[in-house]
Amino acid sequence: MQHIPDAVDTPTILVDVDTLTRNIERMAAAMRSKRIRLRPHAKTHKIPEIAALQIEAGAAGLTVATIGEAEVFARNGVRDIFVAYPLWVGERAATRLRALTAAAKITVGVDSAEAAAAMGAALGNAAGDIEALVEIDSGHHRSGVLPEESLAVATAARDAGLRVTGVFTFPGHSYAPGMPVRAAADESSALLTASTQLRDLGFDIVHLSGGSTPTATLTEPSAVTEARPGVYVFGDAQQLELGRCAADDIALTVASTVVSRHDGQSRRIVLDAGSKVLGGDRPAWTTGFERLLDHPDARITALSEHHATVVWPSDDPLPALGSRVRVVPNHVCVAVNLVDDVVVTSKGEVVDRWAVAAQGRNS
Amino acid sequence: MQHIPDAVDTPTILVDVDTLTRNIERMAAAMRSKRIRLRPHAKTHKIPEIAALQIEAGAAGLTVATIGEAEVFARNGVRDIFVAYPLWVGERAATRLRALTAAAKITVGVDSAEAAAAMGAALGNAAGDIEALVEIDSGHHRSGVLPEESLAVATAARDAGLRVTGVFTFPGHSYAPGMPVRAAADESSALLTASTQLRDLGFDIVHLSGGSTPTATLTEPSAVTEARPGVYVFGDAQQLELGRCAADDIALTVASTVVSRHDGQSRRIVLDAGSKVLGGDRPAWTTGFERLLDHPDARITALSEHHATVVWPSDDPLPALGSRVRVVPNHVCVAVNLVDDVVVTSKGEVVDRWAVAAQGRNS
Repeated sequence: MQHIPDAVDTPTILVDVDTLTRNIERMAAAMRSKRIRLRPHAKTHKIPEIAALQIEAGAAGLTVATIGEAEVFARNGVRDIFVAYPLWVGERAATRLRALTAAAKITVGVDSAEAAAAMGAALGNAAGDIEALVEIDSGHHRSGVLPEESLAVATAARDAGLRVTGVFTFPGHSYAPGMPVRAAADESSALLTASTQLRDLGFDIVHLSGGSTPTATLTEPSAVTEARPGVYVFGDAQQLELGRCAADDIALTVASTVVSRHDGQSRRIVLDAGSKVLGGDRPAWTTGFERLLDHPDARITALSEHHATVVWPSDDPLPALGSRVRVVPNHVCVAVNLVDDVVVTSKGEVVDRWAVAAQGRNS
Repeated sequence: MQHIPDAVDTPTILVDVDTLTRNIERMAAAMRSKRIRLRPHAKTHKIPEIAALQIEAGAAGLTVATIGEAEVFARNGVRDIFVAYPLWVGERAATRLRALTAAAKITVGVDSAEAAAAMGAALGNAAGDIEALVEIDSGHHRSGVLPEESLAVATAARDAGLRVTGVFTFPGHSYAPGMPVRAAADESSALLTASTQLRDLGFDIVHLSGGSTPTATLTEPSAVTEARPGVYVFGDAQQLELGRCAADDIALTVASTVVSRHDGQSRRIVLDAGSKVLGGDRPAWTTGFERLLDHPDARITALSEHHATVVWPSDDPLPALGSRVRVVPNHVCVAVNLVDDVVVTSKGEVVDRWAVAAQGRNS
């Protein structure tokens, strides 16, 4: 059980830099051995220092979700950025994208002829400076077109002046028990089908970009040239419950204090870390809201903004009032976005503090 | 259907100041007519301009969840603040509380003899400057003691040097269909039982403080002297589904853009507002993640960080790509905490921009 530094008030997000570095190096090595280009999704951390560690370990560039995130990382020296999102680009977004192309190679997502045309019209001559990947729906049924619809989108993007260089998908249906292997197979098949169709009609498709921490190490290198996992840097309770990381791989926890304690019929404690620092994500397949790293059988059964209600296992003594425990968020990406900075620790001591520079960059 | 100003990028939080003002005045009038003191919970908005409107309309002071929120509102001129939370106070928190008492009348929550003793020890002589209300569990089973346990806590708080002036509860079990009336009754009964016991043993109990937007207007003035509703200023999708506000009362929406559109078998659109601006709260009893204000039959069936997937009613044409819609968060308190500022509108035009001054003040 790792020490929570006394100097830290609660709730505070702690990042163990040794675990973080090991996670970054392990994924980089796994992708290197498969000859898959690694383009980590930076929406998970939003922290330039972590992006620098990823690139130092061999990442080819970054993935982001918004133009605002791209701006933060470009300003911090990242030279190759993919906004993996079906952007709707009007005049203001076009001005920002044009400015970005001066600092970095910029790639965007597109999933409709209409959005491609609008983007081309707004960008004008600058469209040719931007690469576009057609988003494919590989089974998550969110954005993206079916593989057989990709030609219409790619053609519209080319007609709009964009350079169509690939296809991408997010196999988000990997986020359920027993689903990662199947989602990885769906991802490969969707990207292969779409890219084959586009190549047959003359598109120079060089990028087959897949995603997701649950599937990245399962991906077939014959079908995917690039992977975009995000969560692997920190791990979280979802990945634990999916069996995609171990408790030892958890690099980010929320230091919290026991503020209320009930040792009667309903045996529970209340922590001062609520949804405003942990995030509120609670997929139906998870066993609770968040986990306690050092008490794997305890369950957070209710989460308010500033209270986590933890039901305690009956054979384990309740922690004392005022004592501190480490909470593992269910979904780490939304937790990081709730704080201005994270406290960096090594062997239980504070060694640094990193700003969440892209916090709140939703557009 | 209200206009979304062209000058606004998406996603952006819009606050309609006319609806906001009407909500504030209506709750103030309802509490005035019941002779219940109104002490709105400011964790909902975290915005000094809104606190000023509440106080101008007759609020006796504010409720907050953390010392950090109290500091922001004290700095902005609020003179009576209740931190309605079972604080665990060590040296650093004591220093901050002492500083706060110079600016405002400060009341805190306490729900254990141990926390009361720790707080008294850390505060030293300053304990006598602070009022304490004993937190009662009226059925929500989060923090708080049962009414019959309140004497031990009150006695410890008095022994620790705090001024025990009342009891408080949060009837959070009001947040489910059919529950507000029962929760309001539980609240009254718990506060009456606890306060009677404490008075019988010589405590000068002047505050019986209840909470929650669903119960505030149902509260019995004979049992409650003070109400702490928060959400009523904006309304949200939870209150709509509980029947505690109407669509016309919704003062806060998230302007968002249709970025992906699928008119096939699965008839859906995807919006650029995800959990990083809407919050991720999705209680089991709600019919979906968030609502679209102008399309009451549409349902957000999945919410990612930057995508809301909206299943569209079959007899209603899908909105065009690039068009804009207004989303009503399920739980408005967590949405506001995700942005640096909100855009204030009146009759569809931008009239101001307010900073979310207490954003992220979790401790």
